[in-house]
Amino acid sequence: MPATIQEIDTYAKQWIKEAGERIRTSFPKTLNITTKSNPNDLVTNIDQEIERFFIEKINERFPEHKILGEEGYGDSIEKLSGIVWIIDPIDGTMNFIHQQRNFAISVGIYENGTGKIGLIYDVVHDELYHVVKGEGVTMNGEKLPRLEERGVSESIVAMNAMWVIENRRLPRELLAPLVRDVRGTRSYGSAAMEMVYVASGRIDAYITPRLSPWDFAAGIIMIEELGGVATNLRGEPLDLLKENSVFVAKPGLHEEILRKYLKDGKW
Amino acid sequence: MPATIQEIDTYAKQWIKEAGERIRTSFPKTLNITTKSNPNDLVTNIDQEIERFFIEKINERFPEHKILGEEGYGDSIEKLSGIVWIIDPIDGTMNFIHQQRNFAISVGIYENGTGKIGLIYDVVHDELYHVVKGEGVTMNGEKLPRLEERGVSESIVAMNAMWVIENRRLPRELLAPLVRDVRGTRSYGSAAMEMVYVASGRIDAYITPRLSPWDFAAGIIMIEELGGVATNLRGEPLDLLKENSVFVAKPGLHEEILRKYLKDGKW
Repeated sequence: MPATIQEIDTYAKQWIKEAGERIRTSFPKTLNITTKSNPNDLVTNIDQEIERFFIEKINERFPEHKILGEEGYGDSIEKLSGIVWIIDPIDGTMNFIHQQRNFAISVGIYENGTGKIGLIYDVVHDELYHVVKGEGVTMNGEKLPRLEERGVSESIVAMNAMWVIENRRLPRELLAPLVRDVRGTRSYGSAAMEMVYVASGRIDAYITPRLSPWDFAAGIIMIEELGGVATNLRGEPLDLLKENSVFVAKPGLHEEILRKYLKDGKW
Repeated sequence: MPATIQEIDTYAKQWIKEAGERIRTSFPKTLNITTKSNPNDLVTNIDQEIERFFIEKINERFPEHKILGEEGYGDSIEKLSGIVWIIDPIDGTMNFIHQQRNFAISVGIYENGTGKIGLIYDVVHDELYHVVKGEGVTMNGEKLPRLEERGVSESIVAMNAMWVIENRRLPRELLAPLVRDVRGTRSYGSAAMEMVYVASGRIDAYITPRLSPWDFAAGIIMIEELGGVATNLRGEPLDLLKENSVFVAKPGLHEEILRKYLKDGKW
Protein backbone atom coordinates (compact mmCIF):
# COMPACT_ATOMS: atom_id res chain seq x y z
CA MET A 1 0.00 0.00 0.00
CA PRO A 2 1.57 3.32 -1.03
CA ALA A 3 2.21 5.94 1.65
CA THR A 4 -0.48 8.57 2.20
CA ILE A 5 0.20 12.28 1.78
CA GLN A 6 -0.09 12.57 5.58
CA GLU A 7 2.63 9.97 6.12
CA ILE A 8 4.92 11.60 3.58
CA ASP A 9 4.28 14.99 5.17
CA THR A 10 5.18 13.76 8.63
CA TYR A 11 8.58 12.54 7.45
CA ALA A 12 9.21 15.59 5.26
CA LYS A 13 8.69 17.91 8.22
CA GLN A 14 10.94 15.83 10.45
CA TRP A 15 13.74 15.65 7.87
CA ILE A 16 13.71 19.33 6.97
CA LYS A 17 14.05 20.26 10.64
CA GLU A 18 16.92 17.81 11.02
CA ALA A 19 18.58 19.21 7.88
CA GLY A 20 18.21 22.72 9.31
CA GLU A 21 19.92 21.64 12.51
CA ARG A 22 22.83 20.26 10.46
CA ILE A 23 23.16 23.59 8.67
CA ARG A 24 23.06 25.57 11.90
CA THR A 25 25.82 23.49 13.46
CA SER A 26 27.94 23.96 10.30
CA PHE A 27 28.26 27.72 10.78
CA PRO A 28 31.34 27.74 12.98
CA LYS A 29 33.25 25.48 10.55
CA THR A 30 35.14 27.12 7.73
CA LEU A 31 33.06 26.69 4.61
CA ASN A 32 34.81 24.70 1.94
CA ILE A 33 33.63 26.60 -1.06
CA THR A 34 33.98 25.39 -4.62
CA THR A 35 32.69 27.31 -7.62
CA LYS A 36 30.40 25.86 -10.22
CA SER A 37 30.07 27.50 -13.64
CA ASN A 38 30.57 31.11 -12.55
CA PRO A 39 31.35 33.16 -9.43
CA ASN A 40 27.63 33.88 -8.95
CA ASP A 41 26.95 30.19 -8.62
CA LEU A 42 28.76 29.23 -5.47
CA VAL A 43 28.25 25.89 -3.90
CA THR A 44 29.44 24.55 -0.62
CA ASN A 45 30.03 21.09 0.68
CA ILE A 46 27.12 21.67 3.03
CA ASP A 47 24.76 22.04 0.05
CA GLN A 48 25.86 18.64 -1.14
CA GLU A 49 25.76 17.04 2.29
CA ILE A 50 22.19 18.22 2.88
CA GLU A 51 21.00 16.95 -0.49
CA ARG A 52 22.57 13.54 0.19
CA PHE A 53 20.89 13.50 3.61
CA PHE A 54 17.44 13.90 2.01
CA ILE A 55 18.18 11.31 -0.67
CA GLU A 56 19.25 8.68 1.86
CA LYS A 57 16.19 9.29 4.02
CA ILE A 58 13.76 9.23 1.08
CA ASN A 59 15.35 6.18 -0.56
CA GLU A 60 15.20 4.26 2.70
CA ARG A 61 11.63 5.13 3.67
CA PHE A 62 9.98 5.65 0.25
CA PRO A 63 12.07 3.68 -2.27
CA GLU A 64 9.47 4.14 -5.02
CA HIS A 65 9.67 7.96 -4.88
CA LYS A 66 11.83 9.94 -7.27
CA ILE A 67 14.04 12.91 -6.39
CA LEU A 68 15.02 15.99 -8.37
CA GLY A 69 17.73 17.95 -6.57
CA GLU A 70 19.87 20.98 -7.30
CA GLU A 71 23.17 19.27 -6.63
CA GLY A 72 22.39 16.46 -9.06
CA TYR A 73 22.61 13.49 -6.69
CA GLY A 74 18.97 12.66 -7.30
CA ASP A 75 17.32 10.93 -10.23
CA SER A 76 17.42 11.89 -13.86
CA ILE A 77 13.77 12.76 -14.41
CA GLU A 78 11.98 13.11 -17.73
CA LYS A 79 8.37 13.04 -16.60
CA LEU A 80 6.53 13.81 -13.40
CA SER A 81 4.74 10.47 -12.88
CA GLY A 82 4.34 9.10 -9.37
CA ILE A 83 5.69 10.96 -6.35
CA VAL A 84 8.61 13.33 -7.04
CA TRP A 85 10.50 15.27 -4.38
CA ILE A 86 11.98 18.50 -5.76
CA ILE A 87 14.70 19.71 -3.40
CA ASP A 88 16.94 22.71 -3.01
CA PRO A 89 19.17 21.95 -0.01
CA ILE A 90 20.23 25.60 0.33
CA ASP A 91 18.34 28.15 -1.74
CA GLY A 92 20.31 31.38 -1.67
CA THR A 93 23.79 29.88 -1.49
CA MET A 94 25.45 33.26 -1.95
CA ASN A 95 23.55 34.65 1.02
CA PHE A 96 24.44 31.54 2.99
CA ILE A 97 28.14 32.10 2.33
CA HIS A 98 28.24 35.88 2.73
CA GLN A 99 25.56 36.38 5.36
CA GLN A 100 24.69 33.13 7.11
CA ARG A 101 21.07 34.30 6.71
CA ASN A 102 18.45 34.98 4.03
CA PHE A 103 18.61 31.42 2.71
CA ALA A 104 16.24 28.46 3.07
CA ILE A 105 15.77 24.75 2.49
CA SER A 106 13.05 24.19 -0.11
CA VAL A 107 11.18 20.90 -0.60
CA GLY A 108 8.23 20.49 -2.99
CA ILE A 109 6.46 17.13 -3.28
CA TYR A 110 4.46 16.45 -6.44
CA GLU A 111 2.15 13.58 -7.35
CA ASN A 112 1.73 13.00 -11.09
CA GLY A 113 2.70 16.63 -11.68
CA THR A 114 0.38 18.17 -9.06
CA GLY A 115 1.90 19.96 -6.06
CA LYS A 116 0.80 18.20 -2.87
CA ILE A 117 3.22 19.31 -0.12
CA GLY A 118 5.54 22.29 0.13
CA LEU A 119 8.08 23.11 2.84
CA ILE A 120 10.38 26.12 3.01
CA TYR A 121 12.54 26.37 6.11
CA ASP A 122 14.19 29.66 7.05
CA VAL A 123 16.83 27.92 9.12
CA VAL A 124 18.36 30.91 10.90
CA HIS A 125 15.05 32.31 12.09
CA ASP A 126 13.62 28.84 12.69
CA GLU A 127 10.55 29.62 10.59
CA LEU A 128 8.97 26.66 8.80
CA TYR A 129 6.49 27.53 6.07
CA HIS A 130 4.34 24.57 5.17
CA VAL A 131 1.49 23.65 2.87
CA VAL A 132 -0.54 20.53 2.19
CA LYS A 133 -2.67 21.21 -0.87
CA GLY A 134 -6.25 21.91 0.19
CA GLU A 135 -5.38 22.23 3.87
CA GLY A 136 -3.89 25.76 3.93
CA VAL A 137 -0.48 27.26 4.56
CA THR A 138 1.09 27.64 7.97
CA MET A 139 4.17 29.34 9.42
CA ASN A 140 5.36 27.45 12.49
CA GLY A 141 1.86 26.02 12.75
CA GLU A 142 0.08 29.36 12.52
CA LYS A 143 -2.31 29.64 9.58
CA LEU A 144 -1.53 32.28 6.94
CA PRO A 145 -4.53 34.28 5.64
CA ARG A 146 -5.59 34.18 1.98
CA LEU A 147 -3.94 36.76 -0.26
CA GLU A 148 -6.14 39.72 -1.05
CA GLU A 149 -6.16 41.84 -4.17
CA ARG A 150 -3.84 44.84 -4.21
CA GLY A 151 -3.07 47.54 -6.79
CA VAL A 152 0.37 48.26 -8.25
CA SER A 153 0.79 51.61 -6.48
CA GLU A 154 0.29 50.00 -3.04
CA SER A 155 2.61 47.09 -3.77
CA ILE A 156 6.13 46.08 -2.82
CA VAL A 157 7.70 43.95 -5.54
CA ALA A 158 10.82 41.80 -5.25
CA MET A 159 12.92 42.28 -8.35
CA ASN A 160 16.66 42.56 -8.88
CA ALA A 161 18.25 45.70 -10.37
CA MET A 162 19.85 43.41 -12.99
CA TRP A 163 16.53 43.18 -14.86
CA VAL A 164 16.25 46.89 -15.60
CA ILE A 165 19.76 47.25 -17.07
CA GLU A 166 20.92 45.68 -20.34
CA ASN A 167 20.70 41.91 -19.87
CA ARG A 168 20.33 38.73 -21.89
CA ARG A 169 16.92 37.73 -20.54
CA LEU A 170 14.44 40.50 -21.18
CA PRO A 171 14.19 44.02 -22.63
CA ARG A 172 15.61 46.57 -20.18
CA GLU A 173 12.67 48.92 -20.65
CA LEU A 174 10.00 46.30 -19.89
CA LEU A 175 10.06 46.50 -16.09
CA ALA A 176 11.34 50.07 -15.62
CA PRO A 177 7.79 51.55 -15.55
CA LEU A 178 6.84 48.98 -12.91
CA VAL A 179 9.79 50.00 -10.71
CA ARG A 180 8.60 53.59 -11.04
CA ASP A 181 4.93 52.86 -10.28
CA VAL A 182 5.14 50.50 -7.29
CA ARG A 183 5.45 51.59 -3.67
CA GLY A 184 8.89 49.99 -3.49
CA THR A 185 11.14 47.22 -4.79
CA ARG A 186 13.25 44.82 -2.79
CA SER A 187 15.77 42.09 -3.57
CA TYR A 188 16.71 39.39 -1.06
CA GLY A 189 18.69 36.96 -3.21
CA SER A 190 16.79 33.74 -2.42
CA ALA A 191 13.83 32.67 -4.56
CA ALA A 192 12.46 30.44 -1.79
CA MET A 193 12.56 33.31 0.71
CA GLU A 194 11.01 35.68 -1.81
CA MET A 195 8.22 33.12 -2.36
CA VAL A 196 7.40 32.85 1.36
CA TYR A 197 7.53 36.64 1.57
CA VAL A 198 4.78 36.69 -1.08
CA ALA A 199 2.86 33.90 0.67
CA SER A 200 2.98 35.73 3.99
CA GLY A 201 2.04 39.10 2.46
CA ARG A 202 5.35 40.81 3.30
CA ILE A 203 5.80 41.57 -0.36
CA ASP A 204 3.11 41.52 -3.04
CA ALA A 205 4.89 40.07 -6.06
CA TYR A 206 8.20 38.53 -7.13
CA ILE A 207 9.54 38.68 -10.67
CA THR A 208 12.64 36.95 -11.98
CA PRO A 209 13.64 35.82 -15.48
CA ARG A 210 15.32 32.51 -14.70
CA LEU A 211 14.81 29.89 -12.01
CA SER A 212 15.29 26.15 -11.83
CA PRO A 213 12.41 23.91 -10.68
CA TRP A 214 13.92 23.39 -7.19
CA ASP A 215 13.95 27.18 -6.67
CA PHE A 216 10.16 27.48 -6.97
CA ALA A 217 8.64 23.97 -6.61
CA ALA A 218 7.63 24.43 -2.95
CA GLY A 219 6.84 28.16 -3.07
CA ILE A 220 4.29 28.04 -5.87
CA ILE A 221 2.20 25.41 -4.05
CA MET A 222 1.94 27.80 -1.08
CA ILE A 223 1.14 30.86 -3.16
CA GLU A 224 -1.54 29.09 -5.21
CA GLU A 225 -3.06 27.56 -2.08
CA LEU A 226 -3.54 31.10 -0.71
CA GLY A 227 -5.20 32.40 -3.89
CA GLY A 228 -2.06 33.92 -5.43
CA VAL A 229 -1.04 33.34 -9.03
CA ALA A 230 2.17 31.70 -10.32
CA THR A 231 3.15 31.76 -14.01
CA ASN A 232 6.17 32.58 -16.13
CA LEU A 233 6.75 36.17 -17.28
CA ARG A 234 4.50 35.59 -20.29
CA GLY A 235 1.59 34.38 -18.15
CA GLU A 236 2.09 30.73 -19.13
CA PRO A 237 2.09 27.76 -16.72
CA LEU A 238 5.41 26.87 -15.10
CA ASP A 239 7.23 23.72 -16.26
CA LEU A 240 8.80 21.69 -13.46
CA LEU A 241 11.22 19.90 -15.78
CA LYS A 242 13.14 22.93 -17.07
CA GLU A 243 14.27 26.48 -16.31
CA ASN A 244 11.49 29.06 -16.28
CA SER A 245 11.03 32.76 -15.88
CA VAL A 246 8.86 33.15 -12.77
CA PHE A 247 6.24 35.72 -11.81
CA VAL A 248 4.19 35.20 -8.65
CA ALA A 249 1.79 37.75 -7.20
CA LYS A 250 -1.37 38.47 -5.29
CA PRO A 251 -4.57 37.97 -7.28
CA GLY A 252 -5.55 41.04 -9.31
CA LEU A 253 -2.01 42.37 -9.04
CA HIS A 254 -0.78 39.46 -11.19
CA GLU A 255 -3.33 40.31 -13.88
CA GLU A 256 -2.54 44.06 -13.75
CA ILE A 257 1.25 43.60 -14.01
CA LEU A 258 0.91 40.95 -16.72
CA ARG A 259 -1.31 43.20 -18.83
CA LYS A 260 0.16 46.67 -18.26
CA TYR A 261 3.87 45.95 -17.80
CA LEU A 262 4.57 42.47 -19.15
CA LYS A 263 2.34 43.21 -22.19
CA ASP A 264 0.67 39.78 -21.97
CA GLY A 265 3.97 38.25 -23.09
CA LYS A 266 4.14 40.22 -26.34
CA TRP A 267 7.85 41.12 -26.33
CA MET B 1 30.06 67.91 35.77
CA PRO B 2 28.89 66.78 32.34
CA ALA B 3 28.06 63.10 31.80
CA THR B 4 30.82 60.88 30.47
CA ILE B 5 30.43 58.95 27.21
CA GLN B 6 30.22 55.77 29.31
CA GLU B 7 27.29 57.13 31.31
CA ILE B 8 25.48 58.28 28.19
CA ASP B 9 26.14 54.91 26.58
CA THR B 10 24.69 53.01 29.51
CA TYR B 11 21.41 54.91 29.29
CA ALA B 12 21.27 54.80 25.48
CA LYS B 13 21.54 51.00 25.51
CA GLN B 14 18.87 50.69 28.18
CA TRP B 15 16.46 53.02 26.39
CA ILE B 16 16.85 51.46 22.95
CA LYS B 17 16.07 48.02 24.38
CA GLU B 18 13.03 49.42 26.15
CA ALA B 19 11.91 51.14 22.93
CA GLY B 20 12.31 47.83 21.10
CA GLU B 21 10.11 46.09 23.63
CA ARG B 22 7.42 48.74 23.09
CA ILE B 23 7.57 48.11 19.33
CA ARG B 24 7.35 44.35 19.75
CA THR B 25 4.28 44.60 21.96
CA SER B 26 2.65 46.92 19.40
CA PHE B 27 2.53 44.24 16.69
CA PRO B 28 -0.82 42.71 17.57
CA LYS B 29 -2.53 46.12 17.60
CA THR B 30 -3.90 47.43 14.36
CA LEU B 31 -1.47 50.02 13.10
CA ASN B 32 -3.00 53.44 12.80
CA ILE B 33 -1.29 54.59 9.66
CA THR B 34 -1.25 58.16 8.42
CA THR B 35 0.52 59.30 5.29
CA LYS B 36 3.03 62.11 5.17
CA SER B 37 3.90 63.75 1.87
CA ASN B 38 3.47 60.68 -0.36
CA PRO B 39 2.44 57.03 -0.17
CA ASN B 40 6.11 55.99 0.04
CA ASP B 41 6.51 57.97 3.21
CA LEU B 42 4.28 56.16 5.64
CA VAL B 43 4.39 56.95 9.29
CA THR B 44 2.68 55.25 12.15
CA ASN B 45 1.68 56.38 15.55
CA ILE B 46 4.31 53.99 16.90
CA ASP B 47 7.06 55.94 15.12
CA GLN B 48 5.91 59.04 16.94
CA GLU B 49 5.44 57.32 20.28
CA ILE B 50 8.96 55.91 20.19
CA GLU B 51 10.51 59.26 19.32
CA ARG B 52 8.64 60.92 22.20
CA PHE B 53 9.84 58.15 24.52
CA PHE B 54 13.48 58.94 23.71
CA ILE B 55 12.95 62.68 24.02
CA GLU B 56 11.37 62.39 27.45
CA LYS B 57 14.14 60.12 28.71
CA ILE B 58 16.93 62.29 27.31
CA ASN B 59 15.40 65.57 28.50
CA GLU B 60 14.97 64.19 31.98
CA ARG B 61 18.42 62.63 32.37
CA PHE B 62 20.55 64.89 30.15
CA PRO B 63 18.69 68.23 29.88
CA GLU B 64 21.66 69.94 28.22
CA HIS B 65 21.72 67.48 25.28
CA LYS B 66 20.02 68.29 21.96
CA ILE B 67 17.92 65.91 19.87
CA LEU B 68 17.43 65.63 16.12
CA GLY B 69 14.62 63.20 15.30
CA GLU B 70 12.83 62.06 12.17
CA GLU B 71 9.37 62.81 13.48
CA GLY B 72 10.30 66.38 14.34
CA TYR B 73 9.55 66.38 18.07
CA GLY B 74 13.18 67.12 18.86
CA ASP B 75 15.08 70.38 18.65
CA SER B 76 15.56 72.64 15.68
CA ILE B 77 19.29 72.29 15.17
CA GLU B 78 21.54 74.56 13.13
CA LYS B 79 24.93 73.45 14.37
CA LEU B 80 26.38 70.34 15.98
CA SER B 81 27.85 71.87 19.13
CA GLY B 82 27.67 69.94 22.39
CA ILE B 83 26.04 66.51 22.57
CA VAL B 84 23.42 65.80 19.90
CA TRP B 85 21.31 62.65 19.72
CA ILE B 86 20.24 61.83 16.15
CA ILE B 87 17.31 59.43 16.27
CA ASP B 88 15.26 57.42 13.82
CA PRO B 89 12.59 55.68 15.93
CA ILE B 90 11.73 53.23 13.11
CA ASP B 91 14.08 53.17 10.14
CA GLY B 92 12.33 51.26 7.36
CA THR B 93 8.77 52.28 8.17
CA MET B 94 7.40 50.67 4.99
CA ASN B 95 8.98 47.35 5.98
CA PHE B 96 7.62 47.79 9.49
CA ILE B 97 4.10 48.21 8.14
CA HIS B 98 4.19 45.57 5.40
CA GLN B 99 6.51 43.01 6.96
CA GLN B 100 6.92 43.58 10.68
CA ARG B 101 10.61 42.92 10.03
CA ASN B 102 13.62 44.44 8.24
CA PHE B 103 13.40 47.69 10.21
CA ALA B 104 15.49 49.07 13.08
CA ILE B 105 15.79 51.77 15.71
CA SER B 106 18.80 53.97 14.96
CA VAL B 107 20.49 56.25 17.49
CA GLY B 108 23.71 58.17 16.78
CA ILE B 109 25.26 60.34 19.48
CA TYR B 110 27.62 63.12 18.38
CA GLU B 111 29.85 65.44 20.40
CA ASN B 112 30.73 68.71 18.66
CA GLY B 113 30.10 66.99 15.32
CA THR B 114 32.13 63.84 16.01
CA GLY B 115 30.34 60.49 16.21
CA LYS B 116 30.87 59.00 19.67
CA ILE B 117 28.18 56.32 20.13
CA GLY B 118 26.05 54.46 17.62
CA LEU B 119 23.24 51.97 18.26
CA ILE B 120 21.13 50.14 15.69
CA TYR B 121 18.59 47.71 17.07
CA ASP B 122 17.05 45.05 14.82
CA VAL B 123 14.06 44.67 17.08
CA VAL B 124 12.51 41.53 15.59
CA HIS B 125 15.72 39.53 15.66
CA ASP B 126 16.80 41.10 18.96
CA GLU B 127 20.17 42.05 17.50
CA LEU B 128 21.77 45.17 18.96
CA TYR B 129 24.66 46.62 16.97
CA HIS B 130 26.71 49.00 19.04
CA VAL B 131 29.79 51.18 18.77
CA VAL B 132 31.68 53.49 21.07
CA LYS B 133 34.24 55.33 19.00
CA GLY B 134 37.68 53.85 19.58
CA GLU B 135 36.34 50.81 21.42
CA GLY B 136 35.10 48.70 18.50
CA VAL B 137 31.74 47.51 17.23
CA THR B 138 29.74 44.70 18.78
CA MET B 139 26.62 42.71 17.89
CA ASN B 140 24.89 41.56 21.07
CA GLY B 141 28.21 41.99 22.82
CA GLU B 142 30.24 39.99 20.31
CA LYS B 143 33.02 41.97 18.65
CA LEU B 144 32.79 42.46 14.87
CA PRO B 145 36.07 42.07 12.94
CA ARG B 146 37.61 44.92 10.95
CA LEU B 147 36.45 45.20 7.34
CA GLU B 148 38.95 43.84 4.84
CA GLU B 149 39.55 44.99 1.28
CA ARG B 150 37.46 43.33 -1.41
CA GLY B 151 37.23 43.75 -5.20
CA VAL B 152 34.09 44.68 -7.11
CA SER B 153 33.64 41.24 -8.72
CA GLU B 154 33.56 39.51 -5.31
CA SER B 155 31.16 42.03 -3.79
CA ILE B 156 27.50 42.15 -2.92
CA VAL B 157 26.17 45.69 -3.10
CA ALA B 158 22.90 47.00 -1.68
CA MET B 159 21.28 49.28 -4.21
CA ASN B 160 17.68 49.78 -5.27
CA ALA B 161 16.52 49.11 -8.85
CA MET B 162 15.15 52.67 -8.86
CA TRP B 163 18.67 54.07 -9.34
CA VAL B 164 19.30 52.35 -12.68
CA ILE B 165 16.06 53.51 -14.32
CA GLU B 166 15.25 57.14 -15.23
CA ASN B 167 15.16 59.06 -11.93
CA ARG B 168 15.59 62.57 -10.62
CA ARG B 169 18.70 61.92 -8.55
CA LEU B 170 21.43 60.55 -10.78
CA PRO B 171 22.10 59.49 -14.39
CA ARG B 172 20.53 56.11 -15.12
CA GLU B 173 23.67 54.83 -16.82
CA LEU B 174 26.02 55.67 -13.94
CA LEU B 175 25.46 52.55 -11.81
CA ALA B 176 24.35 50.08 -14.51
CA PRO B 177 27.96 48.87 -15.15
CA LEU B 178 28.37 48.31 -11.40
CA VAL B 179 25.20 46.17 -11.27
CA ARG B 180 26.68 44.13 -14.12
CA ASP B 181 30.15 43.74 -12.58
CA VAL B 182 29.37 42.86 -8.95
CA ARG B 183 28.63 39.36 -7.66
CA GLY B 184 25.11 40.44 -6.77
CA THR B 185 22.90 43.32 -5.70
CA ARG B 186 20.37 43.39 -2.89
CA SER B 187 17.79 45.83 -1.58
CA TYR B 188 16.34 45.60 1.93
CA GLY B 189 14.53 48.92 2.27
CA SER B 190 16.07 50.15 5.53
CA ALA B 191 19.21 52.28 5.49
CA ALA B 192 20.05 51.39 9.10
CA MET B 193 19.79 47.67 8.34
CA GLU B 194 21.83 48.08 5.18
CA MET B 195 24.49 49.90 7.24
CA VAL B 196 24.77 47.10 9.82
CA TYR B 197 24.87 44.61 6.94
CA VAL B 198 27.95 46.47 5.70
CA ALA B 199 29.42 46.69 9.21
CA SER B 200 28.97 42.96 9.76
CA GLY B 201 30.35 42.03 6.31
CA ARG B 202 27.07 40.53 5.02
CA ILE B 203 27.19 42.97 2.15
CA ASP B 204 30.20 44.93 0.94
CA ALA B 205 28.75 48.31 0.02
CA TYR B 206 25.52 50.32 0.12
CA ILE B 207 24.70 53.09 -2.32
CA THR B 208 21.69 55.39 -2.17
CA PRO B 209 21.12 58.89 -3.56
CA ARG B 210 19.12 60.43 -0.72
CA LEU B 211 19.08 59.92 3.03
CA SER B 212 18.32 62.12 6.01
CA PRO B 213 20.86 62.40 8.85
CA TRP B 214 18.86 60.09 11.17
CA ASP B 215 19.01 57.34 8.52
CA PHE B 216 22.81 57.13 8.63
CA ALA B 217 24.03 58.90 11.80
CA ALA B 218 24.57 55.68 13.79
CA GLY B 219 25.62 53.42 10.90
CA ILE B 220 28.51 55.52 9.65
CA ILE B 221 30.13 55.57 13.10
CA MET B 222 30.16 51.74 13.06
CA ILE B 223 31.44 51.45 9.50
CA GLU B 224 34.24 53.96 10.04
CA GLU B 225 35.22 52.35 13.34
CA LEU B 226 35.75 49.07 11.45
CA GLY B 227 37.91 50.64 8.75
CA GLY B 228 35.13 51.13 6.19
CA VAL B 229 34.56 54.38 4.32
CA ALA B 230 31.47 56.62 4.38
CA THR B 231 31.00 59.53 1.98
CA ASN B 232 28.38 60.90 -0.36
CA LEU B 233 28.20 59.63 -3.97
CA ARG B 234 30.80 62.20 -5.00
CA GLY B 235 33.27 61.07 -2.38
CA GLU B 236 32.69 64.11 -0.16
CA PRO B 237 32.15 64.06 3.62
CA LEU B 238 28.58 63.55 4.84
CA ASP B 239 26.74 66.53 6.35
CA LEU B 240 24.67 65.68 9.43
CA LEU B 241 22.49 68.77 9.09
CA LYS B 242 20.96 68.06 5.67
CA GLU B 243 19.97 65.36 3.19
CA ASN B 244 22.89 63.54 1.57
CA SER B 245 23.54 60.92 -1.03
CA VAL B 246 25.29 58.09 0.84
CA PHE B 247 27.92 55.58 -0.24
CA VAL B 248 29.46 53.28 2.37
CA ALA B 249 31.81 50.42 1.57
CA LYS B 250 34.73 48.27 2.60
CA PRO B 251 38.13 49.92 2.23
CA GLY B 252 39.57 49.53 -1.27
CA LEU B 253 36.13 48.77 -2.64
CA HIS B 254 35.02 52.32 -1.84
CA GLU B 255 37.97 53.73 -3.76
CA GLU B 256 37.42 51.38 -6.73
CA ILE B 257 33.69 52.11 -7.05
CA LEU B 258 34.22 55.85 -6.57
CA ARG B 259 36.85 55.98 -9.30
CA LYS B 260 35.55 53.49 -11.89
CA TYR B 261 31.78 53.83 -11.57
CA LEU B 262 31.04 57.08 -9.74
CA LYS B 263 33.71 58.86 -11.87
CA ASP B 264 35.08 60.67 -8.81
CA GLY B 265 31.88 62.70 -8.73
CA LYS B 266 32.30 64.09 -12.26
CA TRP B 267 28.68 63.77 -13.47
